[in-house]
Amino acid sequence: MSKISVAVLGATGPIGQRFVQMLESHPYFEIEGLYASERSEGKRFGDAVKIRDHKFSDEALETKIRSMDLDHISKNARIAFSGIPSDLAGPTESELAKKGVAVFSNAGSHRMDKHVPILIPEINPDHAVSVKRQDTYGNGGYIVTNANCSSTGIAPPLFALDKKFGLEEVFISTYQALSGAGYPGVASLDAVGNVVPFIDKEEEKMEKELGKILGGYSDEGFKPASFRVLANCARVPVIDGHLESLVIKLSSSPSPEDIASTLSKFRGEPQTLKLPSAPEVPIIVRTERDRPQPVYDALAGSPERARGMATTVGRIRDGNGYCKMFVLSHNTLRGGAGGSMLNAELFKAKGLL
Amino acid sequence: MSKISVAVLGATGPIGQRFVQMLESHPYFEIEGLYASERSEGKRFGDAVKIRDHKFSDEALETKIRSMDLDHISKNARIAFSGIPSDLAGPTESELAKKGVAVFSNAGSHRMDKHVPILIPEINPDHAVSVKRQDTYGNGGYIVTNANCSSTGIAPPLFALDKKFGLEEVFISTYQALSGAGYPGVASLDAVGNVVPFIDKEEEKMEKELGKILGGYSDEGFKPASFRVLANCARVPVIDGHLESLVIKLSSSPSPEDIASTLSKFRGEPQTLKLPSAPEVPIIVRTERDRPQPVYDALAGSPERARGMATTVGRIRDGNGYCKMFVLSHNTLRGGAGGSMLNAELFKAKGLL
Amino acid sequence: MSKISVAVLGATGPIGQRFVQMLESHPYFEIEGLYASERSEGKRFGDAVKIRDHKFSDEALETKIRSMDLDHISKNARIAFSGIPSDLAGPTESELAKKGVAVFSNAGSHRMDKHVPILIPEINPDHAVSVKRQDTYGNGGYIVTNANCSSTGIAPPLFALDKKFGLEEVFISTYQALSGAGYPGVASLDAVGNVVPFIDKEEEKMEKELGKILGGYSDEGFKPASFRVLANCARVPVIDGHLESLVIKLSSSPSPEDIASTLSKFRGEPQTLKLPSAPEVPIIVRTERDRPQPVYDALAGSPERARGMATTVGRIRDGNGYCKMFVLSHNTLRGGAGGSMLNAELFKAKGLL
Amino acid sequence: MSKISVAVLGATGPIGQRFVQMLESHPYFEIEGLYASERSEGKRFGDAVKIRDHKFSDEALETKIRSMDLDHISKNARIAFSGIPSDLAGPTESELAKKGVAVFSNAGSHRMDKHVPILIPEINPDHAVSVKRQDTYGNGGYIVTNANCSSTGIAPPLFALDKKFGLEEVFISTYQALSGAGYPGVASLDAVGNVVPFIDKEEEKMEKELGKILGGYSDEGFKPASFRVLANCARVPVIDGHLESLVIKLSSSPSPEDIASTLSKFRGEPQTLKLPSAPEVPIIVRTERDRPQPVYDALAGSPERARGMATTVGRIRDGNGYCKMFVLSHNTLRGGAGGSMLNAELFKAKGLL
Repeated sequence: MSKISVAVLGATGPIGQRFVQMLESHPYFEIEGLYASERSEGKRFGDAVKIRDHKFSDEALETKIRSMDLDHISKNARIAFSGIPSDLAGPTESELAKKGVAVFSNAGSHRMDKHVPILIPEINPDHAVSVKRQDTYGNGGYIVTNANCSSTGIAPPLFALDKKFGLEEVFISTYQALSGAGYPGVASLDAVGNVVPFIDKEEEKMEKELGKILGGYSDEGFKPASFRVLANCARVPVIDGHLESLVIKLSSSPSPEDIASTLSKFRGEPQTLKLPSAPEVPIIVRTERDRPQPVYDALAGSPERARGMATTVGRIRDGNGYCKMFVLSHNTLRGGAGGSMLNAELFKAKGLL
Repeated sequence: MSKISVAVLGATGPIGQRFVQMLESHPYFEIEGLYASERSEGKRFGDAVKIRDHKFSDEALETKIRSMDLDHISKNARIAFSGIPSDLAGPTESELAKKGVAVFSNAGSHRMDKHVPILIPEINPDHAVSVKRQDTYGNGGYIVTNANCSSTGIAPPLFALDKKFGLEEVFISTYQALSGAGYPGVASLDAVGNVVPFIDKEEEKMEKELGKILGGYSDEGFKPASFRVLANCARVPVIDGHLESLVIKLSSSPSPEDIASTLSKFRGEPQTLKLPSAPEVPIIVRTERDRPQPVYDALAGSPERARGMATTVGRIRDGNGYCKMFVLSHNTLRGGAGGSMLNAELFKAKGLL
Repeated sequence: MSKISVAVLGATGPIGQRFVQMLESHPYFEIEGLYASERSEGKRFGDAVKIRDHKFSDEALETKIRSMDLDHISKNARIAFSGIPSDLAGPTESELAKKGVAVFSNAGSHRMDKHVPILIPEINPDHAVSVKRQDTYGNGGYIVTNANCSSTGIAPPLFALDKKFGLEEVFISTYQALSGAGYPGVASLDAVGNVVPFIDKEEEKMEKELGKILGGYSDEGFKPASFRVLANCARVPVIDGHLESLVIKLSSSPSPEDIASTLSKFRGEPQTLKLPSAPEVPIIVRTERDRPQPVYDALAGSPERARGMATTVGRIRDGNGYCKMFVLSHNTLRGGAGGSMLNAELFKAKGLL
Repeated sequence: MSKISVAVLGATGPIGQRFVQMLESHPYFEIEGLYASERSEGKRFGDAVKIRDHKFSDEALETKIRSMDLDHISKNARIAFSGIPSDLAGPTESELAKKGVAVFSNAGSHRMDKHVPILIPEINPDHAVSVKRQDTYGNGGYIVTNANCSSTGIAPPLFALDKKFGLEEVFISTYQALSGAGYPGVASLDAVGNVVPFIDKEEEKMEKELGKILGGYSDEGFKPASFRVLANCARVPVIDGHLESLVIKLSSSPSPEDIASTLSKFRGEPQTLKLPSAPEVPIIVRTERDRPQPVYDALAGSPERARGMATTVGRIRDGNGYCKMFVLSHNTLRGGAGGSMLNAELFKAKGLL
């Protein structure tokens, strides 16, 4: 069976590089071309690589970057994986959808659009059908987004707890990695030995997107879930892995053990369907007193094949009517390229591609 | 007028070094001796120095460390500033108080004792008299504690808001500096590029101490304030300066501008009394979108003489019924040695020494 | 064919952990037991893990650490891989050799002993036979050392250049990783944002060991090579990977291209014998203007199966009669556990085990 | 006596900010205006500040940045302190000199020009007169440069040793701070936990400039000193302070004690003239086994008033015919703004302004 041709947009950035990594030997997809801004046109992909923990194939390293000719892309690729900045992503992705391309996007531009899902296959696989209501669907084109990197990791535990115990409020503080700011991103003079308590639009995104993800979808559109989200976002000198502290108010008062058990047992459709990038266990619960930690758990900590795709939860504590925990997930894998990859795999499995 | 003789206990640690720094040219106090564990006995103070931003006098650098002979200390020093670890601080400080020494302690051991105040002069100067009920007071000895480093910085804004608007709940996540763990403290293999979401007993301390500090004192003892505190504590690769994210529920719903104004205008007894180590402005409100930051604001950011003694607040935002902000304070100055120094200065001013 | 039983000494340290990593699915060797000081006895190996880039098997993570009962080890293990500190390594390794164990050691204690080789199989495989002159050889026991972590990486390029062009002098400055100091090793207060220009005995080791490694061996013992080595050693805030700047005086004046070509083409006995841990290409020459860099090249940069076992050389420049270059190698893999592993593989291949 | 008006060019960069710091209460000079590229025009200086260890005055913080109108500058300022990038510095500084401004530049553009001195007042105050041969001198304008940041710190010890023992060769490896790359400079993804063994044109600068600085000047121009310099340059994750390892070949073979004594006793014209920014002791020799270190010695380590203006030398060792040492100096103070400041002070003292 021949593989589906995919284009990677924004291939030189931290997210784009992870797309390439995940596509190197993917069972469904094969890279048609790597695309980025004109500034990068003609450069070797290998000259852009900033990933510390993956060895790319020589074929990938030698691939020349192309500029984003949308006609060319739409003629040669069924799917576009998009890791381009939001300002550019808005019109580019719309145009590609019009030209019949299935766009799986990591950008924020279209997330709150009427029939565009913010898809996390473990949580809201039923939102996938919303693409059928997009104007471009008849033509074969549509846009599917994944959540922003700081929402993706905490969404599965919040969803699992909501289903079982009813979620009322969640107070989040983030400890976000530098790779989330792209490249060159944060200047080293601001990063070394410092914390920057501000990430542009991040808190607003978290406070809106989580409700849409955990909410419902009908022909009229998305109906957000009703719990309250409050976020404080900060950048810390960590390379990969967003850590977040959570204080959660539930409708009932489960013990930490109940919560741990609920999270550990949680499985979703990607696990049932055995999608290629799905972690066997989507939520890993750690019991040590000082975990999860970015360098030990964001990537290497996953016991299953799909490294960097699970969420790790630790320090589940009772908080006097609230539940406290720390949650970690890999921001450029599960929270970036991996989120879109899993979405495309779900679409393939559901026959929507 | 001759100065009061003081002993510094635990002089080789990050807190002890800050005591020495603040005492080098203090108007009330002069160093009688630097004390530490037997392991350090006879070493030069200069060989222990880990402070990056202060140039000690040659006299201080050449001072030989002594082991903690409590008889010697009680005969030669009126005050002991204590920066020793909690397990040792418990019995040592009790013994010194028995021997007639006024102990101003940074350790946690006696903070929750019946008539021992956790004193922050801007907040609860009326708690100072509690020492008169300590058994050793007749003898001239007593124990006064300062709050733990992560509570000290946020206590003044919480107090100012409580007085004006009524404080109901506060959810805290900390981004705590490495110097708070002492020396050698956190191993570099765990610190570089990482966050450790655990600090032993820190969350419990914050959840208990803040209530005592903002509560009342009568002859029966301390009566904690009734608001709820929930804390998530983490260590980040920052040298000095604890940053904390706060979500605060108040009895009324002031605007961010009201809150900023209330915090900016706040003054306490140290400001009225013009205590030597008191910051002119105890709470500095910054309006930039990305401040406060540890490296820029914990120390050098203070516009007044007493560097590292003010709390900096920034990013005051409305949070849908809650108020959100980031708060920064210097953990080994205001949150350590400086807290005890200011307490001793208050005692001097009140004639309690 | 049954595998050879091996004991790992000092299994909880950075080197010991790398031994476990390399042994998890080794074709010749299988772990008999993990040993460390009494302090660690009975603990799970998983609780000591500080490696950021490897996922250990559950079996390894659950293994209980044993204390170093030398009788037990000698009865159950043919080989001891030693990652223990030098002060302890001296007597322990001697005793194990007496009891008939083949000791492959990463410690410095026996490196300059009369018939103990400092073995780097690409360079001096002929030194292996020196073990036959050790007193304990008749009993089956002997000691083989690998070079210290900062000598190992630069030895292959120095050897390749010596053979072809004649080596006269080398001036080395090191940028050494934190993992080389063990755990807890360097305090984070000394490491973050800092460089420490001192590593105990490191310069002396480099200045002596390289001559022995590149020298000759006969029945009378080792005869050091005659070039001059001068080293300046410093610790930088890097997790893994020792970078070193070299200024080299050769007997002739090859061009940078000649040097690059000589290094790239270099192969040794491990490559001929296809030893399991041998890199296909022992010296990787990079041509970018800013490589090698620890995070990109120490581990993931190797294009061949045996990650972390090759030396990477870059920035080869002409220096007015001297040759300048930067060299990088992984200090706990090739410069630690991997060096001993390759030595044991060579012994197996040569029938010396 | 009225102060001399000075313009600061490139005031928003790390060097420019240090100019402002040093000028805040300077006895000879007062700031006429802060200038930078058009992009910064109209911004508050306070919004650009990246210095962690200095508290600027409110007046400085509120100063609005102007764009570089050379006519305006030449009419209003006698001196221009230049911290602008080299490509821009070339024509800008020439033009200002033509218009009669005395330019004290930190840029590399004119350093190798025929009658432009690379001035270090402790070393070559006699080079100052070279400005009289510049074409623009009649008009009152000229250009004086300071050495690049990695040459400045090591030049005084090399000069002191050359005078006493004869300097033949020096092999240098640098550990250079991030602030040397300007702002935003090095991306944090490349800096955290990493070393970059390349700084554009830095090695070439060091290998040329040191000879000119330590050489002679006559009416025919500069005659470089004849010793050989070989440099390997690398960037490390340090904020301020360039550390460098040196291997030095001298004509005679002094003991480490002789060398230490020669360096400690060294004084130059700035010390005799008591120039405002001159360190009392230009070369501080430390005897601890692990110093100098950037965070402890680059700034706070100076025992004299002029912080960040001395060079610190440590680990002086005998190297088998060579002498080895580590040298540290503050790259944006002595190696940047402070170098130019001292040059201007020398010109003032010599009546050349």
